[in-house]
Amino acid sequence: MRGIVPRKIKGFRDLGPELNRVRWHIINSACKVYRAYGFEHWDTPALEYADCLGKYLPDTDTVAEGVYSFQNPEKEPVLQADGKEVRDKWDHVVMENHFLTMRYDLTAPLARLYAEELWMRHLRGQVQENKVPVFRRYQYGPVFRYEHKLDPGRFREFWQLDFDTVGSDDASVDAEACMVLADAMEALGLKRNDYVVKVNSRKILSGYLAHLGVAGEEAEQDVLRVIDKVEKIGIRGMAEELGKGRMDEQSGAQIPGLGLDETIIIKIVQFLERFSAAGKRQEILENLEPIAELQPVSREGLDELRKIDEILKGVGFAEDRVVFSPTLVRGMGYYTGPVYEVDSTQSFKDEKGRERRVGSICGGGRYDDLVKTLLGLRVPATGASIGVDRLAELLVLTNRFPEASKAPGPVLVVVFDNHLMPEYQKIARELRDKGVDAEVYYGFQRGLKKQLSYADKKNSPIAILLGEDELKKGVVTVRDLRLGAKMSAEIADKEEWKKKAQFEVPREELVKKVTSII
Amino acid sequence: MRGIVPRKIKGFRDLGPELNRVRWHIINSACKVYRAYGFEHWDTPALEYADCLGKYLPDTDTVAEGVYSFQNPEKEPVLQADGKEVRDKWDHVVMENHFLTMRYDLTAPLARLYAEELWMRHLRGQVQENKVPVFRRYQYGPVFRYEHKLDPGRFREFWQLDFDTVGSDDASVDAEACMVLADAMEALGLKRNDYVVKVNSRKILSGYLAHLGVAGEEAEQDVLRVIDKVEKIGIRGMAEELGKGRMDEQSGAQIPGLGLDETIIIKIVQFLERFSAAGKRQEILENLEPIAELQPVSREGLDELRKIDEILKGVGFAEDRVVFSPTLVRGMGYYTGPVYEVDSTQSFKDEKGRERRVGSICGGGRYDDLVKTLLGLRVPATGASIGVDRLAELLVLTNRFPEASKAPGPVLVVVFDNHLMPEYQKIARELRDKGVDAEVYYGFQRGLKKQLSYADKKNSPIAILLGEDELKKGVVTVRDLRLGAKMSAEIADKEEWKKKAQFEVPREELVKKVTSII
Repeated sequence: MRGIVPRKIKGFRDLGPELNRVRWHIINSACKVYRAYGFEHWDTPALEYADCLGKYLPDTDTVAEGVYSFQNPEKEPVLQADGKEVRDKWDHVVMENHFLTMRYDLTAPLARLYAEELWMRHLRGQVQENKVPVFRRYQYGPVFRYEHKLDPGRFREFWQLDFDTVGSDDASVDAEACMVLADAMEALGLKRNDYVVKVNSRKILSGYLAHLGVAGEEAEQDVLRVIDKVEKIGIRGMAEELGKGRMDEQSGAQIPGLGLDETIIIKIVQFLERFSAAGKRQEILENLEPIAELQPVSREGLDELRKIDEILKGVGFAEDRVVFSPTLVRGMGYYTGPVYEVDSTQSFKDEKGRERRVGSICGGGRYDDLVKTLLGLRVPATGASIGVDRLAELLVLTNRFPEASKAPGPVLVVVFDNHLMPEYQKIARELRDKGVDAEVYYGFQRGLKKQLSYADKKNSPIAILLGEDELKKGVVTVRDLRLGAKMSAEIADKEEWKKKAQFEVPREELVKKVTSII
Repeated sequence: MRGIVPRKIKGFRDLGPELNRVRWHIINSACKVYRAYGFEHWDTPALEYADCLGKYLPDTDTVAEGVYSFQNPEKEPVLQADGKEVRDKWDHVVMENHFLTMRYDLTAPLARLYAEELWMRHLRGQVQENKVPVFRRYQYGPVFRYEHKLDPGRFREFWQLDFDTVGSDDASVDAEACMVLADAMEALGLKRNDYVVKVNSRKILSGYLAHLGVAGEEAEQDVLRVIDKVEKIGIRGMAEELGKGRMDEQSGAQIPGLGLDETIIIKIVQFLERFSAAGKRQEILENLEPIAELQPVSREGLDELRKIDEILKGVGFAEDRVVFSPTLVRGMGYYTGPVYEVDSTQSFKDEKGRERRVGSICGGGRYDDLVKTLLGLRVPATGASIGVDRLAELLVLTNRFPEASKAPGPVLVVVFDNHLMPEYQKIARELRDKGVDAEVYYGFQRGLKKQLSYADKKNSPIAILLGEDELKKGVVTVRDLRLGAKMSAEIADKEEWKKKAQFEVPREELVKKVTSII
């Protein structure tokens, strides 16, 4: 009964030429900006040991959930923290099929890469905290998340495009990250005011929550995770989820709450309402002063924002590019200080004519403890990620990269007669030798209409027609498909249309004629 | 006892900036050639349903071996061949965690992509054999193989760069594939005679084996798989493995043989010896005539080679680019007709001074039955794959892409004083605005020597030095690192060295000065 049905896994997709052009336009443009700031291109495997990637997914705290994980087919020794093999009571090496995980982002593998590089030296006592080397790299590629429910436009395999600075706790690097993001957005085609970079320091909220009595890292993470959902579930939904829980309107599922006191929830809501409005960076810094008074950690956070503002002002990045957003949290659990994201300010009409927004297209922040879990040594780091697929969707929907669909295809050499194949090949070869892309038609269905519709699908500028008769006469027929399309829209007279858009040329002048048209 | 040790999975690797430059040089150069022939860029997921990828690995016939495979965390309906859900006797949909496989090549996913596209129309009876649409795409990305034993220089994750034509049984397409490969090799930096494209049709050997009494597809595949190993294990090892089996010299393991009769083995060995020598394509065609006489399928194979020769001759591809190699088999089980590969003819000295060769760097062939297993409809197809990582190794070892290591890095703005950070940022910004890559040093270790060694590692052309004193004087110190390195090798006089390679410029002339040096 069981059969093989050709299909993709749910949440995965194939990408055609148009979207590939957009994807690589984004990657190439942004990477040029990354390199301009001194970041170098590194690549890491798509598959890693699960323990090395850690458990830092948004909305979850366990490894198995949210990721594609499985056991290595190879049995390998279980290791101790010092790298030596674990042995049983008979002194045999304990073997195991270690858990592997397909990477869920590019930051956890970066932490592994950096920690691996430093690990032996650290074991030998040759590395000291606050003297670790600085490392700046960019990387792009697919990441994988096993999301139970897939919202429309979301995928289980999607591309990220990251840059990070490991080995510095200077808030200047966070300021620079905002500059990189803003520059990258404009390099890939967004206009000033199409986007805005939002910055915050988690420490401000963190200190405020401590002041309210939310104590401990775990409790804080739980609250931040709920606050992060506010744009999705609204301020009321958030308040419910901080308290007794709420019912999800779409699925009808009961979502458990954190059980915070009503008084705390009110304070949190007030904080969010007060600081969700846009404003000048300077004003926001002043308004945050009373919060910074409450806890030393909030003061640290405010100092970070001040430094970021100072750098940005110095290089002329005003509020049209980077704003402060004290309510910004970001979902990833590993962020420790400044966090930033890029929001698209553009809206567009979807197929049903509804106004839609893409929202957040990049995100990042400081994660000073991520390397520590692997290395046992504090290594401050900060960086951000461009969501390539979301941005590609945005560029298409708002028509900010029209070249994607208008890319010219190859000249099509139409095939009428199998015996003339060597001649068709020769024509194509001559064109390619002059830098003109040219394709010989190999399809089974040889009707001219079929072949021209194939040329049309490939956006071919010209079709070349050659049969036995023409060969004898020493001529070739050239059909200018672009002119043809234009004229058939404008001119009713079929004869005139044909004369101009389709004509014979002597065989030896063919290449010259084609290059002159293109 | 158990600890987390930062490490990669065995057989996986990180790729640094130099090798990334080589990788992308290869990809970009070859893709330009692919596009010149009319291939379009498609991408497919890294993860697929195991049953859709089939079982077509070299050296193995089972799915679980040789690949990374695991069960989907999501339960999904079991499907029938017509796409409907399988139901149990209570009419409940049978659910299962389907097996997923990380792609082991880019050909099987292409077959899935094409079959998926056509599948619904085929079910409705709207597609006919010999009328299927032609589809030409290129694709690149990592593929994954779980190899038990890893030879040096081999990886479990490696990049392929494929182009394929689906929907044509014309041997002209195979001829074209050889042209594409040869053009791609030269586009990415190999010189004429650095490489050679070898072509064969499996049908010739296949018919010859049938003539010898090796009957049935499975028996034939087994024999071809052993023949494919001849370069690795020698003609003697191959003969043993066709017969009683052999002992692997390295591992001491006993490798079982196919148990062929001695007389058959001798004939196979004679065939290989006769046709392993290089020769003119025309001569080889003539020498194959007696073989073609023996079986109709061998005749088909010879006709394919004749057609390939005719096309190649017509476009001027002589034996310095494409040769016939009647002993060529290629490991993949799915090949049905013409097969081709690119061999590097270059050798180089390894670190121990031994002469080494890279050997095969691309491979491909015709696979007329691959789509059929998914679609139930014969769809002929042919295409090839560039082994990106092997080729990258080759380019590095033979110095055919020296730009990889000489790529200029960013100007480094040396950081002495935290209070001057806004000024350092301003300098970097001004340089970037003029198109000069510039990086501010963020490392903990601020000694000038440390910072200059960082600049050296990044191949920075210039370092910019600015302290409190200089700021007051309105000047900046520029250090020409390239000139400095050149002079320090040539000139002993340290004073002269310093004067020329390091000098002060007025702050407002800095950018002009730097751009003039670069």
